[in-house]
Amino acid sequence: MFQINENFTKLAKSYLFVEIANRIAKYTEANPDKKIIRLGIGDVTRPLPAAVVEAMKKAADEMGREETFRGYGPEQGYGFLRDAIVAHDYQGRGIAISADEIFVSDGSKCDTGNIGDILSANNSVAVCDPVYPVYVDTSVMGGRGGNPVGGGWSNILSMPCREENGFLPELPQKPVDLIYLCFPNNPTGAVIHTAELKKWVDYALANGSLILYDAAYEAFITEADVPHSIYEIEGAKKCAIEFRSFSKTAGFTGTRCAFTVVPKELECGGVSLNALWDRRQSTKSNGVSYVVQRGAEAVYSPAGQEEVKKNLDYYRQNARVIFDGLKSAGFTVYGGVNSPYIWLKTPNDMKSWDFFDQLLEQVQVVGTPGSGFGPCGEGFFRLTAFGSAENTREAVERIVHRFG
Amino acid sequence: MFQINENFTKLAKSYLFVEIANRIAKYTEANPDKKIIRLGIGDVTRPLPAAVVEAMKKAADEMGREETFRGYGPEQGYGFLRDAIVAHDYQGRGIAISADEIFVSDGSKCDTGNIGDILSANNSVAVCDPVYPVYVDTSVMGGRGGNPVGGGWSNILSMPCREENGFLPELPQKPVDLIYLCFPNNPTGAVIHTAELKKWVDYALANGSLILYDAAYEAFITEADVPHSIYEIEGAKKCAIEFRSFSKTAGFTGTRCAFTVVPKELECGGVSLNALWDRRQSTKSNGVSYVVQRGAEAVYSPAGQEEVKKNLDYYRQNARVIFDGLKSAGFTVYGGVNSPYIWLKTPNDMKSWDFFDQLLEQVQVVGTPGSGFGPCGEGFFRLTAFGSAENTREAVERIVHRFG
Repeated sequence: MFQINENFTKLAKSYLFVEIANRIAKYTEANPDKKIIRLGIGDVTRPLPAAVVEAMKKAADEMGREETFRGYGPEQGYGFLRDAIVAHDYQGRGIAISADEIFVSDGSKCDTGNIGDILSANNSVAVCDPVYPVYVDTSVMGGRGGNPVGGGWSNILSMPCREENGFLPELPQKPVDLIYLCFPNNPTGAVIHTAELKKWVDYALANGSLILYDAAYEAFITEADVPHSIYEIEGAKKCAIEFRSFSKTAGFTGTRCAFTVVPKELECGGVSLNALWDRRQSTKSNGVSYVVQRGAEAVYSPAGQEEVKKNLDYYRQNARVIFDGLKSAGFTVYGGVNSPYIWLKTPNDMKSWDFFDQLLEQVQVVGTPGSGFGPCGEGFFRLTAFGSAENTREAVERIVHRFG
Repeated sequence: MFQINENFTKLAKSYLFVEIANRIAKYTEANPDKKIIRLGIGDVTRPLPAAVVEAMKKAADEMGREETFRGYGPEQGYGFLRDAIVAHDYQGRGIAISADEIFVSDGSKCDTGNIGDILSANNSVAVCDPVYPVYVDTSVMGGRGGNPVGGGWSNILSMPCREENGFLPELPQKPVDLIYLCFPNNPTGAVIHTAELKKWVDYALANGSLILYDAAYEAFITEADVPHSIYEIEGAKKCAIEFRSFSKTAGFTGTRCAFTVVPKELECGGVSLNALWDRRQSTKSNGVSYVVQRGAEAVYSPAGQEEVKKNLDYYRQNARVIFDGLKSAGFTVYGGVNSPYIWLKTPNDMKSWDFFDQLLEQVQVVGTPGSGFGPCGEGFFRLTAFGSAENTREAVERIVHRFG
């Protein structure tokens, strides 16, 4: 008799954003005439840059002609895209990463989950609390979670990120094998400065830890001394894998393109992790759609860069509207600078899900309950700057009017 | 100190098609003026149907306008595509599969590998020999392989498929948990008839086995009494997962779209596998590019169907040219009907890789060595019908001229 992976049965039934979608659906069914403003799930609203659309259409045309048709592409991504990534995101910033260290994929969510394939189930894991649920859920699926204990997991070290420590985790007291870090942070919007990140790299090198560094929001960094890549830190190429995405940078949440950097210097007992990930990707994937990769390439064109910058500025302005609006009304707010996420304390120490329900039912604004990201998120709430400018202003007005 | 998944180190370094690519590269470097004809890797050459190209361009335009932009889509695939799949591929054939049993993905290679995520590492595995290497390699990566033994694996039952049994595996003598079946078969081109497939479903139901049924080549079926889906067999919804792809049907090898069917009746100890796969996909994926899903939807339009039929006929004609040409020249050939693959015996009992090297070096034709698919493939060779008509004719002429 075949058996399922029992680790799945330990997980709560619904993924956070599915639960949110369900509550919205229930409310909408009962109140079909109400206009809901969604600042919950971190999904963008600005259209794709025209340069990206044109590149995709051109690529689609190529696929329709015999002379230019393309079948299976390289599992690791086309050279034209890997080269553009290296030139713009790494060598352009003085970071020595080469094209064969870049693995193009259809999403950072996939990659941060799938990376577990090449790692032993016996590794211990550390995550921030609050945290993007995918790190925890996929660790549990891969047998690295142990059992659920008090909102956490017996084999996963939760590193509290609270107001007291500026939402930055503290170095673990004892060695941990795998450390998930995400900066600029989802959900708190906190950033890590160079000196602070160096402590983590030094810790990893000293303890033989592997850092899984999610830099999906790096494009929102505006301040100096905030690293865009962990490889700006000396030694990181020997202890870190970095995840990057076009989702938030260029509006690719529905178009799907991302990449993972696995440096060739990164080894474990003499085995190259670059070779392992290459083996994983070649065996379990056929790469990303050619049309999509041409779209991603166009993000780096001069026209693409200009449009991307405009969109980022648009979202930054939204972040400012939320941050300033709520702060003026007496809310305690964090994030919103170098980040599309605003992390706010619920009024009157309300529970996060209670605040979610009140916001939905009383002012029809959707956000994400902080407790959905972990126990230390309780009493907090995440709003995103990815809405339209008009909706964002209206949402802030509604919240301030009712709760301010 | 973090540890890698040691199962990866048990695998041979190169995936079969990577090894082939390497040998071609080496030959090409030494002989840059020789024209190589590739009938090796199962990659298509006909361009995308015009209806698909138009749908993708329209979708790209939608993504470029604020009013029609789409961010994250459903992880399981858009309703429009799941509905089209159900209407055309299942209900249209009298098979009661519903849209929420369809999971759209970016490839069957991914799905046949990733399906292991929801299954225990302790399951025993049975595969045909010869076999598509992905089933074996991903089983090994997932801890279900044991150790390499004589060209196979200690925990994987190999089911020999030889001339004597018409390249159809025999039912295992003792219960096996997971059974990978692929029909029409890659690499042998063999098909399974309804009565024969029913034996496997009955076996699975009697022994609590799960059949992982790869139907990537079903569009090539022309003969009656050859099931297009395993769900044509009574009871299969309680014991089988089916993998389907647009790759070979509609030329999507570089465009990337496929789907997996997990029936709601399929359970293990009261746990729904549909729910598990849904949890896996929601947690580890953000679905397939909207643009690509619109392209896949257009495959089912009347214009799309007409063009797809033309392309399939084109490849079928190639299959006939290879089959008939080699047979007339004295080769022993199999497959080629209901299948894009021709499976031939090497002349003079030559080893498969020796024949590969001779074909490459002497007539510049690339095929796939049968032994690359397993020990029982030794002495055989796979040619595909996916080349251009002109190249296919020329390749057959070259082979016949030298080896006939």
